[in-house]
Amino acid sequence: MATEGSQSFPPQFREWVEGFASRSPSRFALLVFATLIAVFTFLLSQPFASASGKTTNFADALFSAVSTICVAGLSTVDMATYWSPLGNAIVFTGTQVGALGVLTLASILGAIISGRLGLRARLMAASDTNPLRLHSGPVSEGQAIRLGEVGGLLATVALSLVIIESVIAALMLPSVLAAGYPLGESIWFSFYYSAMSFTNTGFTPNVGGLEMFAGDYWFLTLIMVGVLLGSVGFPVIYALSRNLKNPRKWSLHVKITLVTWAILWVGGVIAYLLLEPENSLVFAGMGPGELTYQAAFLSTMARSGGFNLVDIGQLDSSTLLMTDMLMFIGGGSASTAGGIKVTTFAVLILAALSEARGRSSIEAFGRTIPQDVLRLAVSVGLWGATTVAVGALLVSEFTDAAFEYVLFDVISAFATVGMSTGLTATLPDEGLYVMSIVMFMGRVGTVTLAAALAASQVGQFFRRPEERPIVG
Amino acid sequence: MATEGSQSFPPQFREWVEGFASRSPSRFALLVFATLIAVFTFLLSQPFASASGKTTNFADALFSAVSTICVAGLSTVDMATYWSPLGNAIVFTGTQVGALGVLTLASILGAIISGRLGLRARLMAASDTNPLRLHSGPVSEGQAIRLGEVGGLLATVALSLVIIESVIAALMLPSVLAAGYPLGESIWFSFYYSAMSFTNTGFTPNVGGLEMFAGDYWFLTLIMVGVLLGSVGFPVIYALSRNLKNPRKWSLHVKITLVTWAILWVGGVIAYLLLEPENSLVFAGMGPGELTYQAAFLSTMARSGGFNLVDIGQLDSSTLLMTDMLMFIGGGSASTAGGIKVTTFAVLILAALSEARGRSSIEAFGRTIPQDVLRLAVSVGLWGATTVAVGALLVSEFTDAAFEYVLFDVISAFATVGMSTGLTATLPDEGLYVMSIVMFMGRVGTVTLAAALAASQVGQFFRRPEERPIVG
Ligand SMILES: [K+]
Ligand SMILES: [K+]
Repeated sequence: MATEGSQSFPPQFREWVEGFASRSPSRFALLVFATLIAVFTFLLSQPFASASGKTTNFADALFSAVSTICVAGLSTVDMATYWSPLGNAIVFTGTQVGALGVLTLASILGAIISGRLGLRARLMAASDTNPLRLHSGPVSEGQAIRLGEVGGLLATVALSLVIIESVIAALMLPSVLAAGYPLGESIWFSFYYSAMSFTNTGFTPNVGGLEMFAGDYWFLTLIMVGVLLGSVGFPVIYALSRNLKNPRKWSLHVKITLVTWAILWVGGVIAYLLLEPENSLVFAGMGPGELTYQAAFLSTMARSGGFNLVDIGQLDSSTLLMTDMLMFIGGGSASTAGGIKVTTFAVLILAALSEARGRSSIEAFGRTIPQDVLRLAVSVGLWGATTVAVGALLVSEFTDAAFEYVLFDVISAFATVGMSTGLTATLPDEGLYVMSIVMFMGRVGTVTLAAALAASQVGQFFRRPEERPIVG
Repeated sequence: MATEGSQSFPPQFREWVEGFASRSPSRFALLVFATLIAVFTFLLSQPFASASGKTTNFADALFSAVSTICVAGLSTVDMATYWSPLGNAIVFTGTQVGALGVLTLASILGAIISGRLGLRARLMAASDTNPLRLHSGPVSEGQAIRLGEVGGLLATVALSLVIIESVIAALMLPSVLAAGYPLGESIWFSFYYSAMSFTNTGFTPNVGGLEMFAGDYWFLTLIMVGVLLGSVGFPVIYALSRNLKNPRKWSLHVKITLVTWAILWVGGVIAYLLLEPENSLVFAGMGPGELTYQAAFLSTMARSGGFNLVDIGQLDSSTLLMTDMLMFIGGGSASTAGGIKVTTFAVLILAALSEARGRSSIEAFGRTIPQDVLRLAVSVGLWGATTVAVGALLVSEFTDAAFEYVLFDVISAFATVGMSTGLTATLPDEGLYVMSIVMFMGRVGTVTLAAALAASQVGQFFRRPEERPIVG
């Protein structure tokens, strides 16, 4: 599909794009996202986009565009009332384009990493019909991506997205109708909520937001399912759709992602139950069942969903810190979730565990994880920590808010979670620019960093003598 | 010296100690520190230790003992007035024993790590006369430590400590006399301040503390020199004392420690100058010279010295966060400073840089750092992050203080820095127990963890097939 579409461009342009994308896929990804953000900033700033018919100022338009394209879900305006119907359509389209873009780009970049060092590209290793096959090209094998193949992958991703979102929307519709909205609005809200959950964005289209469905466990569970599917990542969804009942065929990536996702999710639920009930402001008077559901909802949303049923600013410091950690780790690779990704975290933990068990190699599920993957994981982790630290330092210069709020909102931006203590909406323009950069860094940075590092790998012809410093 | 002393014990006991120390040096280190803390908790709780002649309650006595033995410098009582002369002597002795203990143990454990995998023990690689030579024993080579050798090392460390502390104390004496204290008290204060700076403890013996010397740049600079010498670590001091003018003979450990220490120190000074001057509460009305000196002092103390000239609780959030990061990294390995150590941090950064430069091995100063050192560094880093996170979660349950204060004091405890926002002194007993455990974990944990992991290394006879998950 995309292949056909690209034939309408002049051949020179197409060749230039292909060449650029092949030579430096990471820079190409950065350029694509930056261009999308520029286009959507322009669109959202126009009078036709706002309900009031006025021009939206640059800081708000930029922030909304970044938040939309990066499927972050943070907002400085009331998403339910600020935009015109056309503005809402632009936002909706932006999340779809952003989600498709990040899923496709991350899948491609992931394939590049997998394909590096001459390994067979095993992005969707469990499948026999890999939609993304890497040709050898003028640059080293594993780095050459043709637009036609990108088109094929894009079509697969888009199809999955449309199917999943439509099914969830259809299941949501009765709940929205039951909440008393008219049919037309209900259909729109269903698709909007479905899209915002699968893309892990977290915007809400209706006045009152998700709290209008606070007692509707069917609806809330569908939100959680959408967030879960979006946040495990496309390679996992693809592998599961092929081999759901045959775990022996799952790749190491799928196994690590699912197990780490599950451990963090259960750990989050338990931690919230242990930490929060004493805080009478938020979970006061709830029975054990409702309390557990709320904890499960919060644990899911911390993965990067960003919907919230409770006032985040009212949560206890310790609950905020717990959420900080879950958000920072985020979801699966090549997913709509942000953070450093569960596999990155898992590789770091596995390295420590291997060391503790006295193994000289990092092992999981009967496989050895090469040492260069650990270096990539360390790089991504440090990148995340540095982005959050610098972002928090800068934002705290622009506000008098409590530091736990600054840290929470900055990590929420980095991991494109979208939950907010309320701080973001009160930031001055300089603060919004910092938050926009943090979102961009978190969304495009973590995804491209590993690929950029992997692509820069050069052969080494000699090895220097070993010497070990004392650590710890 | 220690060898002669140990001959007064029955031979069975000596053999048992030697066997235990050889078989599991990490557990032996934990036992030694736990025993020291128990003894000093008992001593400090006795009526003779307090100025009032009353029994000190268990929480305060335990906290003071842990803070003393771990050379952390946090306090819940006024160190200048609370203790009797005998109590002060006990505290002073505790810091010396704690510093000697940690320097000796860390040096031994570092030697074990260096010696693992059959490499020549190169703890003090630059020297020809290594005071710690490893014999092969009943367990694997490199892990057998004899008490006699420990005695030799202990004597070398103790001699260095006495010489350095005496020289600094002598240089401090004129300043203390000039501040108006009588001769006897001045001598005592000089030794106390000297010991508290070299051991990186940070207690102050006089009413009014370090602020009584706020304008005395000679005295303050001596404090900084003491903290610097203590925090670079014994292996570095030893190597420099042998080859000060011959950097080509310095080991990789010495080079990495000095360069990382210097970069972090200069970075800290610059960051403080950029961040803090806007905060009129603390650095108001200072000229550029005084401002720079204050920034340099703060940057040195964040390394784990713990003395403070300014009210930490009045610092800006961003300054506190900057300090959090510096404290978490801490000082050199086998030093009286805490934190995950500068070499640990450097190895993580070097791994990311190597990856960014496309190298398949981690290199520094013309040497390759083995991959298992990276795994050790990841383990120590995760250990630190986990200890701080769990500590902060627990402490925040016991206080209503702002989270930035909780995080600061917990990291200060973990890294045995001793600076406080004022929170620690207000914590209930449960909070003090948590802080005591965090100090112990930070002090003994980081030092023994790497060694324990290294010692558990087992041979592997087969290698599982490689498979790489997507990270980032
Ligand atoms: K989100
Ligand atoms: K200290």
